[in-house]
Amino acid sequence: MSQRHRIAVIPGDGIGREVVPEGLRCLRAAADAHGFALDFVEYGFACAGYWQRHGEMLPSDWRDVLGGFDAIFFGAVGWPEVVPDHVSLWGSLLRFRRGFDQYVNLRPVRLLRGVRSPLRDHGPGDIDFVVVRENTEGEYSSIGGRIFEGTDRETVLQETVLTRTGVDRVLRYAFELAATRPRKRLTWATKSNGIAIAMPYWDERATAMAERYPDVVASKDHIDILAAKFVLRPGQYDVVVAGNLFGDILSDLGPACAGTIGIAPSANINPDRTWPSLFEPVHGSAPDIAGRGIANPVGQIWSGAMMLEHLGETAAAAAVVAAIERVLAGRPDVHTPDLGGSGTTESLGAAIAAEITR
Amino acid sequence: MSQRHRIAVIPGDGIGREVVPEGLRCLRAAADAHGFALDFVEYGFACAGYWQRHGEMLPSDWRDVLGGFDAIFFGAVGWPEVVPDHVSLWGSLLRFRRGFDQYVNLRPVRLLRGVRSPLRDHGPGDIDFVVVRENTEGEYSSIGGRIFEGTDRETVLQETVLTRTGVDRVLRYAFELAATRPRKRLTWATKSNGIAIAMPYWDERATAMAERYPDVVASKDHIDILAAKFVLRPGQYDVVVAGNLFGDILSDLGPACAGTIGIAPSANINPDRTWPSLFEPVHGSAPDIAGRGIANPVGQIWSGAMMLEHLGETAAAAAVVAAIERVLAGRPDVHTPDLGGSGTTESLGAAIAAEITR
Ligand SMILES: CC(C)[C@H](C(=O)O)[C@@H](O)C(=O)O
Ligand SMILES: CC(C)[C@H](C(=O)O)[C@@H](O)C(=O)O
Repeated sequence: MSQRHRIAVIPGDGIGREVVPEGLRCLRAAADAHGFALDFVEYGFACAGYWQRHGEMLPSDWRDVLGGFDAIFFGAVGWPEVVPDHVSLWGSLLRFRRGFDQYVNLRPVRLLRGVRSPLRDHGPGDIDFVVVRENTEGEYSSIGGRIFEGTDRETVLQETVLTRTGVDRVLRYAFELAATRPRKRLTWATKSNGIAIAMPYWDERATAMAERYPDVVASKDHIDILAAKFVLRPGQYDVVVAGNLFGDILSDLGPACAGTIGIAPSANINPDRTWPSLFEPVHGSAPDIAGRGIANPVGQIWSGAMMLEHLGETAAAAAVVAAIERVLAGRPDVHTPDLGGSGTTESLGAAIAAEITR
Repeated sequence: MSQRHRIAVIPGDGIGREVVPEGLRCLRAAADAHGFALDFVEYGFACAGYWQRHGEMLPSDWRDVLGGFDAIFFGAVGWPEVVPDHVSLWGSLLRFRRGFDQYVNLRPVRLLRGVRSPLRDHGPGDIDFVVVRENTEGEYSSIGGRIFEGTDRETVLQETVLTRTGVDRVLRYAFELAATRPRKRLTWATKSNGIAIAMPYWDERATAMAERYPDVVASKDHIDILAAKFVLRPGQYDVVVAGNLFGDILSDLGPACAGTIGIAPSANINPDRTWPSLFEPVHGSAPDIAGRGIANPVGQIWSGAMMLEHLGETAAAAAVVAAIERVLAGRPDVHTPDLGGSGTTESLGAAIAAEITR
């Protein structure tokens, strides 16, 4: 009997609603071709609709509603004209990451054939690294506040919180990952020369972890120079592990160096599988281009491939990635504007789906 | 009678000791050519030497020693093999910034003729912006610590601190600057969707300040997408104002996009002139290339030009920048390796000095 996987689908807002259908189209194609079943249950959690009706991003029993699924396939949330971003994001995506303890945010960055890097001298294969981002603590804390509000003495505090558990588990994941890759290189992002209380701790734990992985060539870069080196010498990176904030920055900067954020996928993983993991493109709801049918669906589709991998459907996952690669390399006629083409979300999605079943 | 300016000189460590002499050579040339006097007093505050003898980076009366100068001309501090970076930097540079209330860190980024950008499709003049970095508070705080040390419950906290005074004064400086520039554009860096306590405050203050400068076209970018856009569309930026950490990142990333960090200057300014301002290249002590005489002195020399500007020697400042531009554009024979040449620190410095007096 074939496997069945139960997937919660949250298209969200803006282009999330446009790219998720293409993601689903490709996932269905992969399931058909590889003989397993995907049961999709769609939820309207978003600013548009749900928040407008309820004044909340999620129902209070969201854990019960979503906690039993095998995975969550997520588009993007955010409609800043109507709901402030910190309200919509802390009310949904960031709540999932923390509440479902998805402590690893995995973001592969590859320069693929058919995609033009903004960097000179860089062609297909020259950029191939993974950002492993801590996804639950650090600078994204909810501790802090204001005092003397509205006066000249107004002061705002926000706490960065690092725990040994939180730091060690993401470092371990990153070192394990590096050990499986041909180059076995790991770089940890830090800023211990300036952020002199929290970041030396990160260095200490990374140094201690490195001792347990003698085969991995590990070193650190301060975030300022690391950002610069992503532009100057991206080819030298293999696994880059970073705290929540630096991981956020590097996982937008990396894809930009590799051509477009529109193709970048991400997996918010709970490696212990106590709760569902969540798969979403790196881009957001992009209100500026929403509604025009031109958003690049590749980030969403590739995130679907990462979901299949996580569900154990390794062959199907590889087939989706291979289909993406073939269409990017060989079908410029369906490329979306961010790739320099005049295709649509639908034409690009359909072409990839067709390649999956070919 | 001609002006005299008293300058404290701190070469520091590593390549700081190599580029500062070239900076001084150019400053002397500018003073001679423009009829004013510079009195240099050199101090050995550094890891090498001073710290080794005293176990401190500075004498306890450093404020009295340095506080009376008209400016500080600084190379770079840091020798991580001997002194941890956070000890050497918090013991010197970061202490000056805060202790002398140098609350604006001004870092111009320009793609100059003769310098090759790593970005395709970008030539001379296509990148021309200034990063205005808050330089005394924010994420670079000294509040925080550890609890349950050495156990599995180990937890590290570090406070980000924003004050209305601190935020408003740097914003005001940036808006004033934008108002003087032809494009009158200002972008503030934020991350209010994720860092949901501190960063919405930054947005609020920037929005309020923008209302007072109706001629300035102001908007915000989240730091992740802003970093990506530095690579994808750097030409759209004019004045970029950021908190301490984001300013640090952007002012390394920007120069990388404009070719090399080796030419990037910075001015740590106390606009109220209650204490001396400090001028230093963006690059650090670079232990990896120190001692080989190949460090690019342009960042140091250009910082010298910013110092002359601050001292009111506007014509001399312009002459130094013009000399840099001419030598970068026309003298590839003296370019240092980071510029793709085989020149030395000295040959490049001497060529610029000669241009200044020409
Ligand atoms: C050396 C370091 C503490 C410093 C900083 O982070 O401010 C440097 O990177 C800079 O940008 O001046
Ligand atoms: C939308 C925002 C809160 C989010 C983050 O900062 O994590 C996004 O930028 C991302 O990278 O997933």
